[in-house]
Amino acid sequence: MKAVVLLSGGLDSYTAAAIAKSDGFALNALTIQYGQRHAFEIQSARLVARALGVERHLELSIDLRGIGGSALTSDMEVPRDRDLDAAIIPPTYVPARNTIFLSLALGWAEVLGARDIVIGVHARDYSGYPDCRPEFIAAFERLAALATRAGVEGAAFRVHTPLVTFSKADIIRRGGDLGLDYGLTTSCYDPSGEGRPCGHCDSCLLRAKGFREAGVVDPLLLR
Amino acid sequence: MKAVVLLSGGLDSYTAAAIAKSDGFALNALTIQYGQRHAFEIQSARLVARALGVERHLELSIDLRGIGGSALTSDMEVPRDRDLDAAIIPPTYVPARNTIFLSLALGWAEVLGARDIVIGVHARDYSGYPDCRPEFIAAFERLAALATRAGVEGAAFRVHTPLVTFSKADIIRRGGDLGLDYGLTTSCYDPSGEGRPCGHCDSCLLRAKGFREAGVVDPLLLR
Repeated sequence: MKAVVLLSGGLDSYTAAAIAKSDGFALNALTIQYGQRHAFEIQSARLVARALGVERHLELSIDLRGIGGSALTSDMEVPRDRDLDAAIIPPTYVPARNTIFLSLALGWAEVLGARDIVIGVHARDYSGYPDCRPEFIAAFERLAALATRAGVEGAAFRVHTPLVTFSKADIIRRGGDLGLDYGLTTSCYDPSGEGRPCGHCDSCLLRAKGFREAGVVDPLLLR
Repeated sequence: MKAVVLLSGGLDSYTAAAIAKSDGFALNALTIQYGQRHAFEIQSARLVARALGVERHLELSIDLRGIGGSALTSDMEVPRDRDLDAAIIPPTYVPARNTIFLSLALGWAEVLGARDIVIGVHARDYSGYPDCRPEFIAAFERLAALATRAGVEGAAFRVHTPLVTFSKADIIRRGGDLGLDYGLTTSCYDPSGEGRPCGHCDSCLLRAKGFREAGVVDPLLLR
């Protein structure tokens, strides 16, 4: 059975995709170049797609810098060494990003005849983004049934979030069980030209915390 | 009050935008170049945006030919002289198109501080597209509240569909009342290089039927 999996080049989407593969899905990976500051992640997405043995890897471009409003898609600064326990939605939030990404995944899924979409969101050890929550995903599934020809014909689209209850450490442990090479991935929001992680953005901090709690050395640090 | 209005270059979105303007909204027009066969409509969208006096006209590009699956975004043929009363979803249906477009409008609305989105869908004298129905729009509004920072903070996004109960003739009559120049618009799905309408696609047929029923001459025919 085919699934469309959103693949960013980070470790969450890699793990979510690997879980879907182990569940028997044939993966069709979708990567979006959206004008993100860390466009370096696209290169990681290609490596990850190859490692996963996907059926097809589609890259689409939509320049969300035209919309802006986020530290990832404008010149706004990426926060450094932020308190991750602060209950705020940080400036790296990209307005409507997962809605846009899931919409594109839905369109492709319909064309492929797939009814399953996989996304690596999780609502623990994450950045407080509203569009990573289970209630958002459930609302998208309801929308998908109404939005499509397949839905009118009776199909239900399912958005799989295999990591939704996982901490970052849980994800890393699970990836270890699946034999994933996280050295292929990148997480940093504000990498240098050669993709070197800054070590201070939320995404670097969450990654470091996850590896620490999982008791695993991040292979990126061994480079 | 600001609104984001999806503007295609066709007469429906022009009329919907003009109604929103007459209701007091300051218009921010969003036009999507999505790899459509009738990319000529982008030129019309620019003329329409100028005629409407929009605050800003944002054009975004996302090449849905990578996804395909529609006569508008692939080499599949556009049906000619089809029976418009046949209750099918025709091959010009673009998978998830309005979901993608509304998602982009939502992101831009959030950045602008707008809570209102305007789209010219109607569920009479239309092409049977699932993502033009009121139940789809209502589901998108529910999603928008969950998808965004603004929603988490208590804002409700409203998707206005001022034409939803209108026939094509109703739209044209209303546009006449508002003094709109439909000579600026284009509707054809399969125009020649200079934008000349084919006269046989669903969109040309619906336009001709609408003008006929409204008792108005299509200004495009006077060229």
